[in-house]
Amino acid sequence: MSVVYQNIRRADAATADGFKDYGVATVHEAQGRKGLMAPYMRPIYPGAHIAGTAVTVEVPPGDNWMIHVAVEQCRAGDILVVAPTSYCDMGYFGDLLASSLMARGVRGLIIDAGVRDVADLTRMKFPVWSKCVSAQGTVKETVANCNVPVVCGGALVHPGDVIVADDDGVVVVRRKEAGPVLAKSKAREEKEAATRARLTAGELGLDFYKFREPLAAKGLKWMDQPPEE
Amino acid sequence: MSVVYQNIRRADAATADGFKDYGVATVHEAQGRKGLMAPYMRPIYPGAHIAGTAVTVEVPPGDNWMIHVAVEQCRAGDILVVAPTSYCDMGYFGDLLASSLMARGVRGLIIDAGVRDVADLTRMKFPVWSKCVSAQGTVKETVANCNVPVVCGGALVHPGDVIVADDDGVVVVRRKEAGPVLAKSKAREEKEAATRARLTAGELGLDFYKFREPLAAKGLKWMDQPPEE
Amino acid sequence: MSVVYQNIRRADAATADGFKDYGVATVHEAQGRKGLMAPYMRPIYPGAHIAGTAVTVEVPPGDNWMIHVAVEQCRAGDILVVAPTSYCDMGYFGDLLASSLMARGVRGLIIDAGVRDVADLTRMKFPVWSKCVSAQGTVKETVANCNVPVVCGGALVHPGDVIVADDDGVVVVRRKEAGPVLAKSKAREEKEAATRARLTAGELGLDFYKFREPLAAKGLKWMDQPPEE
Amino acid sequence: MSVVYQNIRRADAATADGFKDYGVATVHEAQGRKGLMAPYMRPIYPGAHIAGTAVTVEVPPGDNWMIHVAVEQCRAGDILVVAPTSYCDMGYFGDLLASSLMARGVRGLIIDAGVRDVADLTRMKFPVWSKCVSAQGTVKETVANCNVPVVCGGALVHPGDVIVADDDGVVVVRRKEAGPVLAKSKAREEKEAATRARLTAGELGLDFYKFREPLAAKGLKWMDQPPEE
Amino acid sequence: MSVVYQNIRRADAATADGFKDYGVATVHEAQGRKGLMAPYMRPIYPGAHIAGTAVTVEVPPGDNWMIHVAVEQCRAGDILVVAPTSYCDMGYFGDLLASSLMARGVRGLIIDAGVRDVADLTRMKFPVWSKCVSAQGTVKETVANCNVPVVCGGALVHPGDVIVADDDGVVVVRRKEAGPVLAKSKAREEKEAATRARLTAGELGLDFYKFREPLAAKGLKWMDQPPEE
Amino acid sequence: MSVVYQNIRRADAATADGFKDYGVATVHEAQGRKGLMAPYMRPIYPGAHIAGTAVTVEVPPGDNWMIHVAVEQCRAGDILVVAPTSYCDMGYFGDLLASSLMARGVRGLIIDAGVRDVADLTRMKFPVWSKCVSAQGTVKETVANCNVPVVCGGALVHPGDVIVADDDGVVVVRRKEAGPVLAKSKAREEKEAATRARLTAGELGLDFYKFREPLAAKGLKWMDQPPEE
Repeated sequence: MSVVYQNIRRADAATADGFKDYGVATVHEAQGRKGLMAPYMRPIYPGAHIAGTAVTVEVPPGDNWMIHVAVEQCRAGDILVVAPTSYCDMGYFGDLLASSLMARGVRGLIIDAGVRDVADLTRMKFPVWSKCVSAQGTVKETVANCNVPVVCGGALVHPGDVIVADDDGVVVVRRKEAGPVLAKSKAREEKEAATRARLTAGELGLDFYKFREPLAAKGLKWMDQPPEE
Repeated sequence: MSVVYQNIRRADAATADGFKDYGVATVHEAQGRKGLMAPYMRPIYPGAHIAGTAVTVEVPPGDNWMIHVAVEQCRAGDILVVAPTSYCDMGYFGDLLASSLMARGVRGLIIDAGVRDVADLTRMKFPVWSKCVSAQGTVKETVANCNVPVVCGGALVHPGDVIVADDDGVVVVRRKEAGPVLAKSKAREEKEAATRARLTAGELGLDFYKFREPLAAKGLKWMDQPPEE
Repeated sequence: MSVVYQNIRRADAATADGFKDYGVATVHEAQGRKGLMAPYMRPIYPGAHIAGTAVTVEVPPGDNWMIHVAVEQCRAGDILVVAPTSYCDMGYFGDLLASSLMARGVRGLIIDAGVRDVADLTRMKFPVWSKCVSAQGTVKETVANCNVPVVCGGALVHPGDVIVADDDGVVVVRRKEAGPVLAKSKAREEKEAATRARLTAGELGLDFYKFREPLAAKGLKWMDQPPEE
Repeated sequence: MSVVYQNIRRADAATADGFKDYGVATVHEAQGRKGLMAPYMRPIYPGAHIAGTAVTVEVPPGDNWMIHVAVEQCRAGDILVVAPTSYCDMGYFGDLLASSLMARGVRGLIIDAGVRDVADLTRMKFPVWSKCVSAQGTVKETVANCNVPVVCGGALVHPGDVIVADDDGVVVVRRKEAGPVLAKSKAREEKEAATRARLTAGELGLDFYKFREPLAAKGLKWMDQPPEE
Repeated sequence: MSVVYQNIRRADAATADGFKDYGVATVHEAQGRKGLMAPYMRPIYPGAHIAGTAVTVEVPPGDNWMIHVAVEQCRAGDILVVAPTSYCDMGYFGDLLASSLMARGVRGLIIDAGVRDVADLTRMKFPVWSKCVSAQGTVKETVANCNVPVVCGGALVHPGDVIVADDDGVVVVRRKEAGPVLAKSKAREEKEAATRARLTAGELGLDFYKFREPLAAKGLKWMDQPPEE
Repeated sequence: MSVVYQNIRRADAATADGFKDYGVATVHEAQGRKGLMAPYMRPIYPGAHIAGTAVTVEVPPGDNWMIHVAVEQCRAGDILVVAPTSYCDMGYFGDLLASSLMARGVRGLIIDAGVRDVADLTRMKFPVWSKCVSAQGTVKETVANCNVPVVCGGALVHPGDVIVADDDGVVVVRRKEAGPVLAKSKAREEKEAATRARLTAGELGLDFYKFREPLAAKGLKWMDQPPEE
């Protein structure tokens, strides 16, 4: 038996939206360097940056039927996370499914498999992070589960978790940790903004961070380049 | 002995041109999911979409002399398909060869090897689908065949076949099958356009495609997410 | 003990700047096909083309402390070249370090590892050629050497060498060979410009390069495609 | 806070041991084609075939301290499953840790990262399935969780699940599904044994499986190869 | 409609068998450096070396039904060559199909996709060259063609061509060129045997091949290593 | 002009030989985690373990002429290190060159490119660590340098440096650092031998290394697995 769990608990919407202001690298640091998907998860076009709550769905290898099921479970502010039950790189998702998701206010797709119609998706401004681009289509024969924990890009995603994605990749924030991680992301970003201003003005990181003494203590020496032989 | 076949039979020009309106994923489906090149064949810049008739040429590893031979065999509406006789990833093709091909009305290049001068090619709007980008040049020492069947990106291409390429990849349509496949692509696209309108308006695919009953028949259940432990 | 060499000998600034007019493929050919980095060194955004003098720095795996040290050794016209002491693909470099480098007039970064904050770097127009994009950050624990010879993208780089990078990749020109290689690049480009004009006008490479006779001598035959079976 | 869960519920030992008689491909089919790790998970030497219960452990990138913690949680019949909290390919595990695990009766290691001392591990007959071989060592600085659900090779593993690994790869069987899946594996294998005997004796699969009629119904024709042109 | 061509023309059996004495590298050189499959086609166990005549079969992505059809077309001395109609890396082939092929005297399998049951295949001494190992199985739903030209590992194979495979990879020899290529392989090998004897005895290649003069003419100088700085 | 440096300074022979007793992982740790080649440098057969002094040679892409030159510079106890001047993966080296090197007492080959005749090399017990296996041969047209510093597998190698290679990969030890690094490798190995004895006897690493207290100080808790929901 396969199950579609409805009415899932989601991270607080305002909290999830708040992550839109912070990059994946910042959020990953802020939550203690966990939850990062593998670097092979790349955006289909540059410049997209989204945050939202995860609706998760399993798909059998080469079969995208369950994505149609998942669409109904999505609402405004969600991000759909698709994970094959076994390794597969076919093109599960194209512009028709994107039309459906956009009609429901979904912010993007994260899929550990292939995607197609990428020119259309770019024009529609529907961002996707995927393992590859492939025109190879799929069938509709087999069911699986929707809104259960899934593995995507090597990271575990529970329904209702927060997803943040930008040009650096994709990171998952646990639903119950979203509030504190958002606060830590904000604190980190504010601190970085102050630092950025001083570094942009030309102050050296060596001075700003007071690195000269600890570097010397580790045995680093400065000397002129020796004359040429 | 190596041979250059001249005056090849090409797919009908109007038919070949007609494929410009259909994406690679659509054409691949329309002809029964065959003829797709491997996903490693990627465009050097996004947004290009071409269709035309294939002029094919073999090149020895690390030797691009035969591409100069192939230029003369090309005419307006053609797409040049280049296949090394053994696996190679050097940069066989750059802006000078592209100037020659553009002067003859050639629409693009498909090469199962490397390409270089990609900034120039982007400015010239000469699209290329290749295995990689490499500045590593080639020599001019050895001859091979032109306008014989070649293997490119894992797909067999005969001279005169139709090539369609876009951001999803590259697909080959047999010369004699071009007419029926174009008709099927058109039918598929029209059907999808109607579907797209209804999905964009918010109708669920579950309802539109009447999926609820067969899904239930396969054992899919809908239930509320259980309360938290 | 680790050392930071200061006041390094650099290639002549006007010479280094002169390479800005020539592509990586041209320079690689002009210096006899050496010094090309591996094709996996890719730009984070298309269209950048830089030339400048190398400041080199080693970084331990997963530790970017030495990049802060290297910033101080950079001056206007330099390009920073970062090489891990052992294979690593974490995200060593982001927008804060880029702010520091831009404040000093540095033209770009070449790194045989990962980079992050690529959306910010694209907005700032600070070009980077890297092995991958990764949000995975690094620590500041261990020292290494600055301005010693390093290996980056499979190529040996000495401090003060000229680096040229564009959409085709990255090439290194030895400091003492910069003058002659620039002259050869210019000569090659001028010759190509004349060739390009004639090829663009429709003259065939077969005629322009006088290839017909040597091709025939190698056994190449032209004949009409045989009729269909 | 990080946690080590002790006294975990494991799949029944006799059931787990029973999987030793069935290959990964058989078990994967028997449980409905789910739970297969990605093909990049390869054995360090050929011929190993193990089944056992999973002890799971998270490791921070480049830090193997938690593996020492996990050793204590292992008992005879277990298989240790190690998953980095973010993508990493360093060499987390070598012959000393293998000595500890063998002393406790552990049957092997599954690690979504690198392993080293592979010549020693081969001599000791301690099998490992890993993403890569790397001599690059790790530190002991940071804690994480032990015996929580982890993602390894793209598959979700709960503590106490059954792991089966052979030269074809690695598959995970849920603890509560182990009994039925073992029965199905046995049934499948028995059926295959009977089939194998008849195929080895020369009976054609076309006849044995009664494929000729359905193949013809799908439009397959048999004809002699046409004479040569 | 799909077709199975029967009673194909094969290269002469004695000639095909004769290639068993020559390695892939030798045959590839002897036929002018063409017909080599891509380096990703690797043997599942070391030490196998086979030569025979090709029976070819197309398989749809994720569907191995046609391999059962192809078995009947094979006879003693053949090698089965399997090519997906679109890129796929599932495990199409295991020990049951190998039992059938061995019963008919088939010498091995070349498949541009995945294979499974590799431990059994190793025990049975049935050699396979494949793109990958994958336990992921396939279905039996769709027909395709048997004994038509196919592309495998990037090389074009016609039914009846000679296949030679060893630890270096796989090479294809055209049916009509088999006689002359065998003669050239023999000549090459005899010449190498004489060379090998002299090099093994300690004669330098520089002297044996008379390389010193042409090397000097290209500008190569010998000098003592300069003293250390 | 290209140069062959003769009579190079080599690391002390007894010291170089001494590294034969220590694995690559041990030596890499002993010298402070530097000098490791990239994990893509893999042995052509398992079980080889060599140490010796480096003779280095550059080769142009697709041209192995300089390897013949390098043979003459090798003597008993050396290991030949071959580096293309630009990225290349052809098969530069086969059994004839191995015969020459074995006649001179050379212990193995490290090559950042392809190798062929691997079945013969395995029979001859001539170990090779390479980027890939490829039957694709090379030409003899262009000269380069011998016994200059080269980059191989991403690591810088000077002539006379010590090379250690085993199933874990390849590490380079600087000529002048060989003595101290050997001593540190020995110390490390002795310490590990004592540790190994106690771990093999069943003592936990947690106790042996006194990890319990620092783990607890970092916030690690032990607790029983909660009951099932």
